[in-house]
Amino acid sequence: MLPQHVVAELRSVLDPEDVLTERADLISYSIDGTWLEARPECVVLPRSVEQIAAVLKVANRERIPVVPRGGASNLSGGTIPTSGGIVLNLAQLNRILEIDTDNLLAVVQPGVLTHDLDKAVMARGLYYPPDPSSLHQSTLGGNVAENAGGLRCLKYGVTSKYVLGLQYVTATGQIGRAGGRVIKNVTGYQLEQLLVGSEGTLAVVTEITLRLIPRPRFKRTAMAIFPTLDGASQTVADVTRAGIVPAALELMDQTSIRIVEEVRHLGLPTEAEAILLVECDGNHEGAIEDEMDRITGILRANGASVQLARDEAEGEELWAARRAVSPATARLKPNKLGEDVSVPRSAVPAMIRRCREIGAKYDLLMPIWGHAGDGNVHPNLLFDQRDPEEVERVQAAAAEIFEAAVALGGTITGEHGVGILKREFLGIALDPATIAVMRSLKAAMDPNNILNPGKIFPEGEGNRRVPVQLVLTGAGAGEVESTTATPIR
Amino acid sequence: MLPQHVVAELRSVLDPEDVLTERADLISYSIDGTWLEARPECVVLPRSVEQIAAVLKVANRERIPVVPRGGASNLSGGTIPTSGGIVLNLAQLNRILEIDTDNLLAVVQPGVLTHDLDKAVMARGLYYPPDPSSLHQSTLGGNVAENAGGLRCLKYGVTSKYVLGLQYVTATGQIGRAGGRVIKNVTGYQLEQLLVGSEGTLAVVTEITLRLIPRPRFKRTAMAIFPTLDGASQTVADVTRAGIVPAALELMDQTSIRIVEEVRHLGLPTEAEAILLVECDGNHEGAIEDEMDRITGILRANGASVQLARDEAEGEELWAARRAVSPATARLKPNKLGEDVSVPRSAVPAMIRRCREIGAKYDLLMPIWGHAGDGNVHPNLLFDQRDPEEVERVQAAAAEIFEAAVALGGTITGEHGVGILKREFLGIALDPATIAVMRSLKAAMDPNNILNPGKIFPEGEGNRRVPVQLVLTGAGAGEVESTTATPIR
Repeated sequence: MLPQHVVAELRSVLDPEDVLTERADLISYSIDGTWLEARPECVVLPRSVEQIAAVLKVANRERIPVVPRGGASNLSGGTIPTSGGIVLNLAQLNRILEIDTDNLLAVVQPGVLTHDLDKAVMARGLYYPPDPSSLHQSTLGGNVAENAGGLRCLKYGVTSKYVLGLQYVTATGQIGRAGGRVIKNVTGYQLEQLLVGSEGTLAVVTEITLRLIPRPRFKRTAMAIFPTLDGASQTVADVTRAGIVPAALELMDQTSIRIVEEVRHLGLPTEAEAILLVECDGNHEGAIEDEMDRITGILRANGASVQLARDEAEGEELWAARRAVSPATARLKPNKLGEDVSVPRSAVPAMIRRCREIGAKYDLLMPIWGHAGDGNVHPNLLFDQRDPEEVERVQAAAAEIFEAAVALGGTITGEHGVGILKREFLGIALDPATIAVMRSLKAAMDPNNILNPGKIFPEGEGNRRVPVQLVLTGAGAGEVESTTATPIR
Repeated sequence: MLPQHVVAELRSVLDPEDVLTERADLISYSIDGTWLEARPECVVLPRSVEQIAAVLKVANRERIPVVPRGGASNLSGGTIPTSGGIVLNLAQLNRILEIDTDNLLAVVQPGVLTHDLDKAVMARGLYYPPDPSSLHQSTLGGNVAENAGGLRCLKYGVTSKYVLGLQYVTATGQIGRAGGRVIKNVTGYQLEQLLVGSEGTLAVVTEITLRLIPRPRFKRTAMAIFPTLDGASQTVADVTRAGIVPAALELMDQTSIRIVEEVRHLGLPTEAEAILLVECDGNHEGAIEDEMDRITGILRANGASVQLARDEAEGEELWAARRAVSPATARLKPNKLGEDVSVPRSAVPAMIRRCREIGAKYDLLMPIWGHAGDGNVHPNLLFDQRDPEEVERVQAAAAEIFEAAVALGGTITGEHGVGILKREFLGIALDPATIAVMRSLKAAMDPNNILNPGKIFPEGEGNRRVPVQLVLTGAGAGEVESTTATPIR
């Protein structure tokens, strides 16, 4: 627990009811979207940037870890307070401050849910493309911290492409603004881009200015069923070579199809080796029709049977299979390690083949789905955390998947982040000089290492294991209540 | 001059003929796209990343400034060796290493000319959108260092949006790779984005992996002549509100029109207050026609007379006026301070009004053109450097233009960079906390301050003047040959 005088000081700089130290509260803040768990010593819910600055000044002086937290849908353990300390919950900073239709931008607080912004700007004829699957739970602050992707990012780009400006608080409690409200800005370094994807380790983001685009007025969706995985792979390559950029191009492998069908009975063909879901959008109906015609031609030429949605409702039905896959896995095994490798798109077929070999080698149930169009593949290792032998196989398989991705010219995470799950693998994806530079940037911005310590950077030497069972580190580590698996969310 | 043993060591780590110390050579490397001038002590032309690393190790040990240099078309004095030292000319690293049509990317050395990449990828059906006006002279390394923009960036985004990965050498001579060949990558910090726009102050970029897009197959160009500036301003706002994003939307004010007409006799209407040039592009001819129809409707509704190009050749003719304006100014005055403020696009009319007031107040010839669609405005102050009284008026006017841009929610540079021209104004655009963070990042990556020292960050206190006459600083400063104006390039 934190020293009493520190808790008292936090209660004096915040509204007293916004400082939680009850056991039940601490337990509520010990988990995220992984199965990992570690107890904070205190949870604070600030209401303003000034309060956040005050908390950070106290924490920096007292050398107490601070873990910024949004919707806690994180899939790399980034919001787990592994060193104890203070969880800084940004949930009360949840206002959309401005939607500027003249300048195509929105200003939001970090606690706004991704979906809420999407809905609000849609109503004004605008569009905020990044759409992580967690968008009903994730916050924009979390999306910025993780540089979140999503289905629509193939055509529209990930979160970083939409961040124009950030207000932030440094580890020492200084309030600053990086970037701004303009489209083109080369005044000083791209600090706002350094903060995007920094997983809460460099500063606390307290306000976000996001670029918006006009809402595409037309959309067409198709589902293509492939007897062979090779046909689906070839399609992705052919679409790219034809100069077509669909809004989304999603793949499900046979294992994924079978899991969804077993659980949801959608009538999917379980003998198919792959399904591709394709969406085209834009502002000209004829152009979209033509684009979808060209894509349909490529799909059929590669052996697919194609279902074309006649309207938006039918389109949503086609997407149901893809959306069902992640929840469906929970019915088969209590735990899931949702991997997130990213490879050059031409290497997607090879990556999927390697994953299937690895799954077979370690006798693991491993559905694969992902954003085939941009090379971001999610092999999902299903397991039961209570089975230590299975856990070992998952750890070995995950390590081989990371190595395969890097060998194919890719990297270990495309949109989930490094967090604690992959920190020991950073060295297979980045060279020593680059890790040293990144560590020096961290030290420059957070000299006492209080901001989300233990995340991103390797702690051990040669200990290349995904921490499926969490080992708490640090003197301030909170008491561990339980090591059993938490449900998949 | 550098100590003899240092020159000897440079000759031993490089090919001896790649180390220049002759007076004529040093003079050649003392200028860039501004009228500023300062002499280096030595020029090196490395042929490999290893040679660059070796040069930096020597320079870091000996505390010698190193100024990386591309095409030297820089408009903020960023390539001027104001502290003497070594100019690191990257001209010999000028190969396009790879154009990967399957993965839509190119790998290039930093000395490749922007236009050469554009041409090479066009031939493969691909497109590299960033198109600074200097593209026949500028290099991709320089574009990365400055985060260069251009006309097509309204629709397609600036250089940073296309940088997937960088190989770089640190100030201490370590070779590293940031980012990679994948579209989605959240492994560690966005170091490649921190380096983009860092003006050669954080590392030397030695290889660039650039995202490409399919080449748009169709293009339509229109020129709209407005009796009033307000009509042109309203058009920009209306096009944005209609959800249309043209490829380019360029403005010329009356002074620009008159200068071009005086010099080039293109038949432009000198009584018009503004011209807008609009380009639409895309992959569907019908969609482009419809988009141009909608734009033409908006142009006419705001009082413009519209000329529509019937083919690409006619389109080029319409662009001739815009391309002629910068060279034409050279006929009127020997020097030009090409300003580069960036404001939220709804503030463009107010920004232009303020510029005209400031131009009148200081009795300066100030044509204004720029990228109206994205809020990046170029007020160009014409002057004669030999007239100290006029120089003073230019300095006062520039300072007021910067203040006006910031007051309108904008910033002091949209695409030219800070360099030495605007370093003393950094504090009006960025808050003290942000400048302190940026300085700490610089210190972390370049502990001995050898990489392009004196750029970006303010050196003086309260000395807010654009250095129209260059004052050399630093013990290592080279001898100044002349302080007369250099021709506008």
